[in-house]
Amino acid sequence: MRWHEHSLDLLDQRLLPAEEHWITVEGAEGVAQSIRDMVVRGAPAIGISAAYGVALAARHAGGGDWKAEIRQAIRELSASRPTAVNLFWALQRMERVFHQCHSLAEAEKRLAAEAVSIHKEDLAANREMADQALAFMNPDKPVSVLTHCNTGALATGGYGTALGVIRRLHERKLLKQVYADETRPWLQGSRLTAWELARDGIPVTLNADSAAAAILARGEVRWIIVGADRITANGDVANKIGTYSLAVLARHHKVGFMVVAPSSTVDMSLASGADITIEEREGTEIREMRGIPLAPDGIRVFNPVFDVTPASLIDAIVTEKGVVHNPNITGMRALFG
Amino acid sequence: MRWHEHSLDLLDQRLLPAEEHWITVEGAEGVAQSIRDMVVRGAPAIGISAAYGVALAARHAGGGDWKAEIRQAIRELSASRPTAVNLFWALQRMERVFHQCHSLAEAEKRLAAEAVSIHKEDLAANREMADQALAFMNPDKPVSVLTHCNTGALATGGYGTALGVIRRLHERKLLKQVYADETRPWLQGSRLTAWELARDGIPVTLNADSAAAAILARGEVRWIIVGADRITANGDVANKIGTYSLAVLARHHKVGFMVVAPSSTVDMSLASGADITIEEREGTEIREMRGIPLAPDGIRVFNPVFDVTPASLIDAIVTEKGVVHNPNITGMRALFG
Repeated sequence: MRWHEHSLDLLDQRLLPAEEHWITVEGAEGVAQSIRDMVVRGAPAIGISAAYGVALAARHAGGGDWKAEIRQAIRELSASRPTAVNLFWALQRMERVFHQCHSLAEAEKRLAAEAVSIHKEDLAANREMADQALAFMNPDKPVSVLTHCNTGALATGGYGTALGVIRRLHERKLLKQVYADETRPWLQGSRLTAWELARDGIPVTLNADSAAAAILARGEVRWIIVGADRITANGDVANKIGTYSLAVLARHHKVGFMVVAPSSTVDMSLASGADITIEEREGTEIREMRGIPLAPDGIRVFNPVFDVTPASLIDAIVTEKGVVHNPNITGMRALFG
Repeated sequence: MRWHEHSLDLLDQRLLPAEEHWITVEGAEGVAQSIRDMVVRGAPAIGISAAYGVALAARHAGGGDWKAEIRQAIRELSASRPTAVNLFWALQRMERVFHQCHSLAEAEKRLAAEAVSIHKEDLAANREMADQALAFMNPDKPVSVLTHCNTGALATGGYGTALGVIRRLHERKLLKQVYADETRPWLQGSRLTAWELARDGIPVTLNADSAAAAILARGEVRWIIVGADRITANGDVANKIGTYSLAVLARHHKVGFMVVAPSSTVDMSLASGADITIEEREGTEIREMRGIPLAPDGIRVFNPVFDVTPASLIDAIVTEKGVVHNPNITGMRALFG
């Protein structure tokens, strides 16, 4: 995404890889719509774009009750999607700055600066997480890994969380092969991860989500590396639907299971994954593909977008603040208070 | 499928549910092509249509070397797809009859009769399996089940294997809900299973394959019921990609895992699943949807069509000859010699 002080450019992730189309939004409403419609997705990227949305609300506030306008923008942005906590975390940071502002001019300036900080910090956190993960994995020879969904530059402030670790492995010549789940129904794996990795010359093989078990059975993959949309106080992780399945399969095949996410993804206010709101999206995502019917008209669909992986199935949660090995409430509290 | 003595009508399963289009084939070559292109699919249906293919070869044999023509037809049919053993089983039955024929007129008559027998026996076997499965499950109240791929009337001589059991549960008012995996990449679940079940008024909910684990975690599903393409002497099962994943998930969630297949699917000549040839199909099945690109052009794809579920993860293999509980080589030998 590109910030221009008076507008925000978003690469429309719905059209990739067929088309690289940028959308310019000039207000918080446009940003909220873009999050809802998945022009932009990925927990950290959602948080960053929402922060820019608040900055835009200040920039374009009318001469009247500018405070009410910004408050309304924050409300609208926070209702755009329910599961990724980075959204609420970023909006809280913006709100804190907003409350300190005494004039619209001050708000314009400080809110833009805060959004840029959030963006820059996320990028720095990605690079730090990659270092932490490599130190933890400490591979003595090139490894193959499997990943799910998209956690790369498109999902973050740049570089990536799980995909950042994969990039770093590649930079250090410690990566043999990435297996990328296509990630139904939205195909973040085929459309975004395969596209990002191929552009960067990283060896990637695409597979149906249901082929992951057969791939693990072959014994080549050493780590499954994924991102997160929310991590609770006990180390449970909400992430893209299918993540929990992979965690069960990793345990069965004695393959490492690593979650990589910035500390903004951690929500110590929730005791466990049972408390996370799991978004369900339209059945059309399963019943249709760009208007082509794939299933009988009107057939009932269960389409949860996320699932919860219990901490007990996770080997490591990697954040920029450090690694929680075999996560539980004690380990989480030690790092996140 | 419909047999007309001089031709075979096949419902084109590639176009369902959008279109109900029947293809008429008049020779073995057309049947082989239809199997290769997945106009017809499903292990039992592949076997039955191949048998009709041999009958058509006799029907349309020229005046010259009719034996060579039929032998060539059998060769071509047996090369159409590699994994489902029902194909080879049906062709062996046809070949045995063929070797007993002394004239083309006799071959025409007897090969057609044998193909019709194979078809009728499969239908009868389906109904018998449903009875066996219900006796084994013995549910005391309506249950919810999850299934994968399509194992219904479209995949068999009629009624279905796993879907036959589900039909029987419904007939006996012992079925609460069927969760149907959409079954990437070919979407047999969305396109065929959901279509068959909805037509018959059986309550079905469609889900992404990767959502199966989240569904099992909710605790409603009691059984995962699937078909098979080949079952080896030790009880290992080759079936649609994703089946092995479900078996691991079933064990983790303490959900029953049942394989339903006619005895023609059993291949006692293979010691274990490691000996089964697993078909890999074109990467375009993952990279494209009806010509629409879903992934970067030319990206590498791993697209195995089947996987192998070890006997140790299977609670019961149900055939028309009986049920093998906790399958192993002893149990398999007791039923299949």
